Amino acid sequence: MVENYDIVIIGAGPVGLTLSTCLARWGYRIKHIDKRPEPTLTGRADGIQPRSLDLLRNMGLKRKIMEHEPAKVYEVAFWDPSAKGIHRTGTWASCPKFIDARYPFTTLLHQGLIEKVFIEDIEKHGGQIQRPWTITGFQNDGRDPTYPVEVRLAHVDGTLSETVRAKYLFSGEGARSFVRDQLGVKIHHLDPIAHVWGVMDGVVRTDFPDIKMKCTIHSDAGSIMVIPRENNMVRLYIQIASSTDADWNPRKTATPEEVQEHARAIMKPYTITWDRIEWYSVYPIGQGIAEKYTLDERIFMGGDTCHTHSPKAGQGMNTAFLDAVNLAWKIHHVESGFAPRSLLSTYESERKLIAENLLNFDAKYSKLFSTRIPSAGEVAGAASSELVENEFIKTFKASCEFTSGYGVAYNPNTINWGPEHAAQHPLFLSYEKGTTQRTGRILTPATVTRVVDANVVHLEQEIPMNGSYRLYLFAGSPSKTSTALKDLATHIANPLSFYSIFAYKDSNTSKAPDRYHEAHNPHTRFLSLCTIFNAPRSKVYIAEMLPQVFARYRDHVYADDIWDQRVPDARAAAHAKMGLDEESGGVVVVRPDGYVGCVVELVEGKATCEALNMYFSVLTGKTLGEERSAL
Amino acid sequence: MVENYDIVIIGAGPVGLTLSTCLARWGYRIKHIDKRPEPTLTGRADGIQPRSLDLLRNMGLKRKIMEHEPAKVYEVAFWDPSAKGIHRTGTWASCPKFIDARYPFTTLLHQGLIEKVFIEDIEKHGGQIQRPWTITGFQNDGRDPTYPVEVRLAHVDGTLSETVRAKYLFSGEGARSFVRDQLGVKIHHLDPIAHVWGVMDGVVRTDFPDIKMKCTIHSDAGSIMVIPRENNMVRLYIQIASSTDADWNPRKTATPEEVQEHARAIMKPYTITWDRIEWYSVYPIGQGIAEKYTLDERIFMGGDTCHTHSPKAGQGMNTAFLDAVNLAWKIHHVESGFAPRSLLSTYESERKLIAENLLNFDAKYSKLFSTRIPSAGEVAGAASSELVENEFIKTFKASCEFTSGYGVAYNPNTINWGPEHAAQHPLFLSYEKGTTQRTGRILTPATVTRVVDANVVHLEQEIPMNGSYRLYLFAGSPSKTSTALKDLATHIANPLSFYSIFAYKDSNTSKAPDRYHEAHNPHTRFLSLCTIFNAPRSKVYIAEMLPQVFARYRDHVYADDIWDQRVPDARAAAHAKMGLDEESGGVVVVRPDGYVGCVVELVEGKATCEALNMYFSVLTGKTLGEERSAL
Repeated sequence: MVENYDIVIIGAGPVGLTLSTCLARWGYRIKHIDKRPEPTLTGRADGIQPRSLDLLRNMGLKRKIMEHEPAKVYEVAFWDPSAKGIHRTGTWASCPKFIDARYPFTTLLHQGLIEKVFIEDIEKHGGQIQRPWTITGFQNDGRDPTYPVEVRLAHVDGTLSETVRAKYLFSGEGARSFVRDQLGVKIHHLDPIAHVWGVMDGVVRTDFPDIKMKCTIHSDAGSIMVIPRENNMVRLYIQIASSTDADWNPRKTATPEEVQEHARAIMKPYTITWDRIEWYSVYPIGQGIAEKYTLDERIFMGGDTCHTHSPKAGQGMNTAFLDAVNLAWKIHHVESGFAPRSLLSTYESERKLIAENLLNFDAKYSKLFSTRIPSAGEVAGAASSELVENEFIKTFKASCEFTSGYGVAYNPNTINWGPEHAAQHPLFLSYEKGTTQRTGRILTPATVTRVVDANVVHLEQEIPMNGSYRLYLFAGSPSKTSTALKDLATHIANPLSFYSIFAYKDSNTSKAPDRYHEAHNPHTRFLSLCTIFNAPRSKVYIAEMLPQVFARYRDHVYADDIWDQRVPDARAAAHAKMGLDEESGGVVVVRPDGYVGCVVELVEGKATCEALNMYFSVLTGKTLGEERSAL
Repeated sequence: MVENYDIVIIGAGPVGLTLSTCLARWGYRIKHIDKRPEPTLTGRADGIQPRSLDLLRNMGLKRKIMEHEPAKVYEVAFWDPSAKGIHRTGTWASCPKFIDARYPFTTLLHQGLIEKVFIEDIEKHGGQIQRPWTITGFQNDGRDPTYPVEVRLAHVDGTLSETVRAKYLFSGEGARSFVRDQLGVKIHHLDPIAHVWGVMDGVVRTDFPDIKMKCTIHSDAGSIMVIPRENNMVRLYIQIASSTDADWNPRKTATPEEVQEHARAIMKPYTITWDRIEWYSVYPIGQGIAEKYTLDERIFMGGDTCHTHSPKAGQGMNTAFLDAVNLAWKIHHVESGFAPRSLLSTYESERKLIAENLLNFDAKYSKLFSTRIPSAGEVAGAASSELVENEFIKTFKASCEFTSGYGVAYNPNTINWGPEHAAQHPLFLSYEKGTTQRTGRILTPATVTRVVDANVVHLEQEIPMNGSYRLYLFAGSPSKTSTALKDLATHIANPLSFYSIFAYKDSNTSKAPDRYHEAHNPHTRFLSLCTIFNAPRSKVYIAEMLPQVFARYRDHVYADDIWDQRVPDARAAAHAKMGLDEESGGVVVVRPDGYVGCVVELVEGKATCEALNMYFSVLTGKTLGEERSAL
C-alpha cells in the first residue's frame, strides 16, 4: 500500500515551513521532510521585513517571534571614508514615513528560532517534519489521476526508504536542489561572482556609536555592513575579495581572525573586540534565477531553489515567505473547487517577476556596496562630505519601498483586475479613478472600531490567514447606503452569485455542523466578509442597519471613527485611506494573501453585484450571475 | 537545623505571586506555600485594569498574558428599563481619552491563567510554590536577630510539617486569614451585607447586541452586569436578593437554573441560552478593611486579607498587584541597606488609603447598581429616557480614573515629595509650579526615540521592574544644558552624593564582575538613569554630548523627537507632557514602582545635585552631599 498525500514538501527552511503551516491549517495531508537532523542552529537569514511581519501576524505567529526579543532596525546609518578614518555621513529610515506600515522596522532574529515558531504551529495542527530524510526520485506519472505524482524518499543514512503518492510535490530545498536538477530547470545567472564576503555573528565591545544600528561602512580599507541581532549580538558582513582586486580569486577565503583584523582596520578610528563569535562563514556573492518554477503545475519550487542573491538587503527569507503563501492559497482554491487549475500558472508569473526585480536590485546594490567610495578629500569640488549623497545612498533610499516588502506589485492578470481583465463593467474602480488601492498590491492598513465589543482594531488583520477571499464592504454613511446594501444583499442571495455558489452544501441539512460561533466563515470557506460604516460605533446597530446576510458576520462589522494622522481632515479615515467616497463607500476585494483583487463602486440596484459576479466568474471559471439562473 | 529564608509567603493568589515574582528576581530566598493543590481552575477575579497592564509589561509578563487572547473591554454600555423591556441609554469609554493610558481597555482573563504566568516566571528564577501546605503558627520572637520570625508550616493532610525562620512573613491568604486572626487584627465592615449576587461564566447564544461589551443592565425584573471573557465566554453577575426585598435573607441562594431564568426575565425583549456553564457561584456583597496591614513591620498582610469588597468594579486583583509591588521594593531597599527600616511604615499608610478609597467607591457603586431604576415611563417630566443620566451612570463616569488604576494617588510622605517634606530647596517643582507630574502618582507615558538603535520606545517602560529608583534626566536643548549636565556630573561624582553612595563596592577592585553589557545598573542597584534630549535622534552624539557618568547608560539615552497628539504644538513632546521647559529640561525621580517621587529643575552649578541629595537624604536616612565630605 502506497500512502497518499495532498502534498510532499522537501525542505524545512522558511519557504517549506510557511507552505506547510498554511496547508496544515486548512486541513491538507502533508508529508514534509528535511535532510538536516534539526532546525538551523546558528547564522543564516535573520531579517524579517515590515511587510513580512504583517504576514506573520496574520498567521498568528508574530507574538511568538517577538517573544525572543529580536533586534529592531528603524534606521540605517551611512559611514564613509574621511581623512581620519570613517565618519557618519547620514542616516535614513529603514521604512520611511511615506510607507504606511504598521511595523516600520526590520526584525532581526536567528533563523532557527523563526523556524521553530513555524514547526510548533505545524505540530499544533497535527503535522511534523520527518528528519533527516531526503528525496531520491519522483515522477508525475499520472498512474493515479487523483495522486499523479510518485515521490521516493529515504533516510539520509540509506537505512530506510518509502514511496508515496501525492497531488503536489514542492521543493524548498535551497540553492542546491535535487528536484530542480532532475527537472532540468536551468539557473540563469545575472552576474558572474564578483565579490567574496565573510559573515560573522558575535558579541562585541566597541566605541563605534552605531553598533546597534544597521550601518553600511565604506572605508579606504574596505566595506562592512553592520546588522544588530537579538541577545546583544551583532552581525558583520565584511568584504574579503572583489573582482577588481589585482589578485582576484572567487574561491578566496579568510580565517575569522583575518576578518576581525580587517574589520578593525575598516572601523578606524573606532576600536572593536569580540567577546565571542557565534557563527562565521565565507561566501561568494552570485545572483541566479530559475528559468521555471514549475513544468507541470504539479511539481513546484520556491525560495532559494528558484532565486539566489546576496543576503545583505535582507530579502531572502521574506521572498520565501511570500512565495509560499502565494502558492498555498492557490493550491487550496484549486483543491477546494473554488478555482480552475489554470490559477496555478499565476504562481510562477507573479513570483518570478518579484524575484527578477529582487535580483536586479541586489545586483545593483551589491555592486555599489562593494565599490570603493573615494574619501571626501579625494572628491574634487565637494565643499563638505555631508553634501555628497553618493550613488549607493541614492539607491538605498530609492529602494526602501521595495526592501520593506511593500513594493511587491503583481501585474494585472485573471486575479488582479485591470483594464485588460476579461471582466469589464463601469463600476470597477482603479488607482487612476476612484480609489487609492492598486490591484496586485497589499491593502492599505486602517484602524477602526469593532462594533460588537468596541475594540480598536487593525482592519487589515481582522481576517486571519484562513485561505478565504476578503470582501471589505465600505458602507459609507448608513443613511446614504441602506438601499444599496439591501440591493446587494438581495442579489448575492441568488444561488448563482459569487457569494452563494460556494455556500456550504450541508447548510440546510440536518448534518450541518453548528456554525453559530463561526466568525470568519459562517457561510462559505470561499470568502470572509467585513462591513465598515462611516458612523460612530455607538450609532451602528447591526441587526437594524444590515441585511441578515451581512449581519451574520457580526464580529466583522466596524465603525470608521478613529482619527488618522495620514488623513487628518477625514471624517472616516479608513474610507479616506482607501480613496473611497466617505458617504457612498465601495467594495474592496482582497485575495487570501492580502493583495487587492479589485475595487467596485457600491450603488443601488444590481450593478455592484453584477461587477463582482463578473470578476469572480473570471477567477473561478464559473458563469456567475442572474442571467444564467434565468436560462 | 532550621532553614532560614528572606521571606515566607502564604498564599499564591495575585498578591502573593506578585510579591514572590519581584523578590525572586531581585535574588531573595523565598518560601512560598499555598493550601490549594493547584492554581485556580475556574472563575474568580479576571479583570486587569489599564494601569495594571502597564505594571505587568514592566515586569515582562504582558506578552504571556496576551498570548491567551483575553477579551478587552473598551466601552461600557448602560441598559435601563423601558416599557418594552430593556433598552440601551448610552455607552461610555472604560478608560476615556482624558486619561493618558497606553492600553485604554480592561483585559479579561481567567485568574488561573494569570497565576500560571507568574508561577512560570517564579520557576524561571529558581523558585516554586509548595502545595498543598498551610501555616500552623508563627511568632516574631527575635531569637535570631537576622531571621526574627519563626514560621510553622504543615502539609494540609497533616502528614508533614516544618519550622523555618525568616526576615519577613507575608500573608496573601485571602479573606479568611489565619495570620490576621492570630495577630488579632480586626476587619472593619463599612456596610452590613445588603445584596446577594450570583456569578456565572459560560458560552451563550443571544440576540442581545452588547453581549461582547461590559454592560450594566437595570430592568424591572432586576439587575445584571455583563462582562466578556476569553474563549467566547461571558460572565453575568445577577442580583439574587437585596435588603430591600420583603423576604430579605443574606443567606439566600439560587440554583444555576434559577439564575438563568432570572437573567432571561431581565434581558427581555432579548433572548439568551447557554451552550455551557464553566463556573457558577453565589456570594453576598460585603465591604471590609483590616485595621492594620502590619503590627511589627516584619509580618505583613496584603490583598484580600486586608480588604474585601464586591468584584464588580474589577478592582480586587489590581489592588493586590499594587499592594505587592509597593511592599516588594520597600523590603528590597531596606534589606539592601538603601533605606532605613522606617520606609516599611509607608506600606500601610500608602496602601490602606487606596483600599479605603476603593471601599468607599465600591459601597456607593454597588448600592447604586443594586438599586432599582424607574422605567422611563415612571420618570415624571423626563421627555426622553436618553436624557436621564441617572446617579449610577454619573458615578460610573466620575470614577473612570480611579477604576482604570490611574487615580491611585499616594499622599506626600518621606518618599513622595511635598511642601511639608523635610527636603526643601527652591529647585523642587510641583504640580502647582513647573511640572505636570504629581508626586505619588504614576509617571505620564511618553514616546521617544532610543539613540543607540533608533527604536521608537515607550519611555516609562524603558527601565524594567528592577527594584531601582528611576532618574529621568530631561536634558532640554543640548546647546542650552551642556554646562548644567557637566556640573551635575561633577557633583554626583562626589562619593557622598545620592548617586555615588550606593555604588558597587567592588567597582574598583579586581573582583568586580564584568559589567560592560549591563544596561540598567552599571554603577549601582540603587538607581537607573535615563537621559532625554530635545533634539532629533541623528543630532544626539552620546560620547560628545554627555559626561562619561551619564554616557555610560548608553542604552538609556533618548531623543524627544516623536510627535504626540496630546501636545500637538510641542517640539519636544515628552518634555511638554512632563510640563518641563523644552529648552532647560528638568529631573524627574520615579520610585521603583513607577510613582513620581520628586521633580527638580536642571540648572548650572551645584543646586540640582543639592536638591536631589536632600530628597535622597530623607528617604535613605543618610546625610548626603558635599558639606559632609568637607567635614
